[in-house]
Amino acid sequence: MSGQLASRADYGAAALDLNITKDLCAFLAEATFESLPEAAVHAGRRGVLDWIGCALAGSRHPTISKLLSVLEEVGGAPQATVLGRGMKLGLLEAPIANGQMGHVLDFDDTHMGGVVLHASSPVLSALFALSEKKTVSGRDFLLAYAAGFEAGVRAGQGAPAHHAGGWHLTGTLGTIAAGAAAGRLLGLNAQQMVHALGIAATQAAGMQQNRGTMCKSFHAGKAASNGLLAALLAQKGFDSSDEILEGKRGFCRIYSNVTNTDLILDQLGERWEITRNGHKPYACGVVLHPTIDAMIALGAKVPQTGGVAAIELRVNPLAVSITGVADPRTGLKSKFSLTHTAAVAFLDRAAGIAQYTDERARDPEVSALRDIVHVRTDENLGKDQAWAAVVLQNGERYEHQVVHASGTVDNPMSDAAMEAKFMANAVPAIGQDRAARVRDAVWRLDQLDDVGSLLGPCA
Amino acid sequence: MSGQLASRADYGAAALDLNITKDLCAFLAEATFESLPEAAVHAGRRGVLDWIGCALAGSRHPTISKLLSVLEEVGGAPQATVLGRGMKLGLLEAPIANGQMGHVLDFDDTHMGGVVLHASSPVLSALFALSEKKTVSGRDFLLAYAAGFEAGVRAGQGAPAHHAGGWHLTGTLGTIAAGAAAGRLLGLNAQQMVHALGIAATQAAGMQQNRGTMCKSFHAGKAASNGLLAALLAQKGFDSSDEILEGKRGFCRIYSNVTNTDLILDQLGERWEITRNGHKPYACGVVLHPTIDAMIALGAKVPQTGGVAAIELRVNPLAVSITGVADPRTGLKSKFSLTHTAAVAFLDRAAGIAQYTDERARDPEVSALRDIVHVRTDENLGKDQAWAAVVLQNGERYEHQVVHASGTVDNPMSDAAMEAKFMANAVPAIGQDRAARVRDAVWRLDQLDDVGSLLGPCA
Repeated sequence: MSGQLASRADYGAAALDLNITKDLCAFLAEATFESLPEAAVHAGRRGVLDWIGCALAGSRHPTISKLLSVLEEVGGAPQATVLGRGMKLGLLEAPIANGQMGHVLDFDDTHMGGVVLHASSPVLSALFALSEKKTVSGRDFLLAYAAGFEAGVRAGQGAPAHHAGGWHLTGTLGTIAAGAAAGRLLGLNAQQMVHALGIAATQAAGMQQNRGTMCKSFHAGKAASNGLLAALLAQKGFDSSDEILEGKRGFCRIYSNVTNTDLILDQLGERWEITRNGHKPYACGVVLHPTIDAMIALGAKVPQTGGVAAIELRVNPLAVSITGVADPRTGLKSKFSLTHTAAVAFLDRAAGIAQYTDERARDPEVSALRDIVHVRTDENLGKDQAWAAVVLQNGERYEHQVVHASGTVDNPMSDAAMEAKFMANAVPAIGQDRAARVRDAVWRLDQLDDVGSLLGPCA
Repeated sequence: MSGQLASRADYGAAALDLNITKDLCAFLAEATFESLPEAAVHAGRRGVLDWIGCALAGSRHPTISKLLSVLEEVGGAPQATVLGRGMKLGLLEAPIANGQMGHVLDFDDTHMGGVVLHASSPVLSALFALSEKKTVSGRDFLLAYAAGFEAGVRAGQGAPAHHAGGWHLTGTLGTIAAGAAAGRLLGLNAQQMVHALGIAATQAAGMQQNRGTMCKSFHAGKAASNGLLAALLAQKGFDSSDEILEGKRGFCRIYSNVTNTDLILDQLGERWEITRNGHKPYACGVVLHPTIDAMIALGAKVPQTGGVAAIELRVNPLAVSITGVADPRTGLKSKFSLTHTAAVAFLDRAAGIAQYTDERARDPEVSALRDIVHVRTDENLGKDQAWAAVVLQNGERYEHQVVHASGTVDNPMSDAAMEAKFMANAVPAIGQDRAARVRDAVWRLDQLDDVGSLLGPCA
């Protein structure tokens, strides 16, 4: 490159597609609750209900005690509630705890619209912390929640190879989502929102290498805390690049070797990403869900007497690349095991919290069955599709095909199923009465004057 | 990929080079102060002295007031000193502040051994916070400081395209360095150290897109805080991947499209990376320093009477790609401007804090001179080399070549120059007496029983 004249080029600015971050942030700063379609509002109610339940169930996970022992030590003035633990922590520490407990069971919501993102753990952990700092109405809360989805999902759509590159999107996109949501709840103007996104995105992290470890759900908690910090800083005039998404050394280019920044603004204001959110009937990664549907169906169909000779699966390649752990020895690892999942779903006709414990991961019956699971990937199968067969030792053969897994956009959980899931998650932590009170309040969230009032019964 | 049999592959484990993280961490956990060569110990003393001075000078930057207004609001029980501000913050918040003020002037140390890393702001901010939590000897402190360099620099060497990929290494590698240093000071065992690195690296972030904004130095602060949190969690049994550096979806692969994990363990225990650290005589990015040396020399040589017709520069390509801002309008942006730097260094025969203020960036005389700077990149010039010429309106021509910029490994600042820099930075913040006390204590750091005692005079 000797001899290249470069004295007037400003290498800090984007060369190609200016104003994408600015346009997105102007939209986020200026959107009103009235502009949300009822489908988005209802998706918000469902999302809040589901997340609170997941966080309450997760609050009892051993990982959380380790985390809290440190956060209590470093943390300061109790300002924000830790769900299910009867305690408060500092404003940046409570979101770490709540975000991690929301995601630790892999039971929380999943957006699969060009991303694999568990947005609610980062976003709601940040928003609930702010809801104790000032009085927040249900309408403002729901708008901020939707704004978080817009920012996080759209940033991911602009970086199409982000997931394949090895990133845990709940950590990375979750930080951006939490920053935008917190910024919206703080009422940032458009320029401040640009900075909130810039400060959030520059903290975005989380590696898939840490799947099956305590770090995976920690990513969700740190995303919440980092996003909240970003918004608080932006409010005080802390600045960042104005082109954090599209810039030459910005998010879409350095977190992905493929870039499609045009998608970031596609149908903005028409398509609300929160309406495309999915909720899990099963306590594990969403790519496992079609297989679970199939194995539960086969568990009901196959005679209990005949010994099983083999289980055959055909799945989308992502189910193997994400959940290819063959012989998990811990509950956390077993959530990333297609073979474990097929075995327990068949044996237990369920895939709840009880199917992903350390004990179940080490159970000899489960382990024996795992060893005779044969997996083939098939690119013609969607991420929400699977085919399974059980072959008995007497040669009999039973098959089942799943076209859309339960809980996905094309086969959503009903409101009744969401309620049942919530109560199953929440009652062991806070009891029947308080759980019912929270449930009823969340269904009319847009009428609440003070969202922080939800936290008392959840503490 | 249809038909691929994948049922027994564990996709969570590294395929190629196992145990790199484990071997590195065993070394870090087991190294003793006695194993440090005197050159490493003295590099530690110089590094601590220089960093405290930079942080004290930076403590007055307007960016820091914005940051502190948020950290005070969210932070909790005052546990750790914020340098130069007469206040304490929570254990995770003080390192954000100290790390940012250490780096905000771009005056802090730079390691260029395969990386461009300002390690001391992240590492020392974490270590000083811990030094108020428990009594820490100077020897333990120096060993932990050296351990931080080993981890951060070596992780970067394993990911050779990391900087070219758009990352700000002080944010990313700084987090790993701070995690290892804090882990060493906490006395983590080898397995805990593996987790400290795994938890730290999975928080590693910072984009070059944010150069010239308040986020750049924020990266250093967050690296300190995140690294410290990682070590504290690892101490409590929080886990992570055991192969965070070399794993298939680990640091070296997902933060760099070129990987050379063999370098991570190269000459481990023989070559101490802290001995290859550089210190800045000038308050801006290190790639500008050879140009500054040349322009200061020309400023002394060229007759003051003749009007300047042109300034010609020949520099390593990195000087343009990192510091290519042509017409900076703020002090922070001007630190990323080769043309601004050449102009002010020539006019002022200096490149200190005063040359990178908002006022100097907008000065018409500086701006006019910037416009006649002509830059050529030359791959044959090293990062510490530059050539410059000044052409006068009467046709006279003056040239100067710099073989090794001042402050680099091959042309280091003397201890006397380091002292002078420290006093110039520290005296305005804490006065002559306290600055002299700190200076004297740091020169015998390895004999101190309680490093935390340094913080009183620095507060």
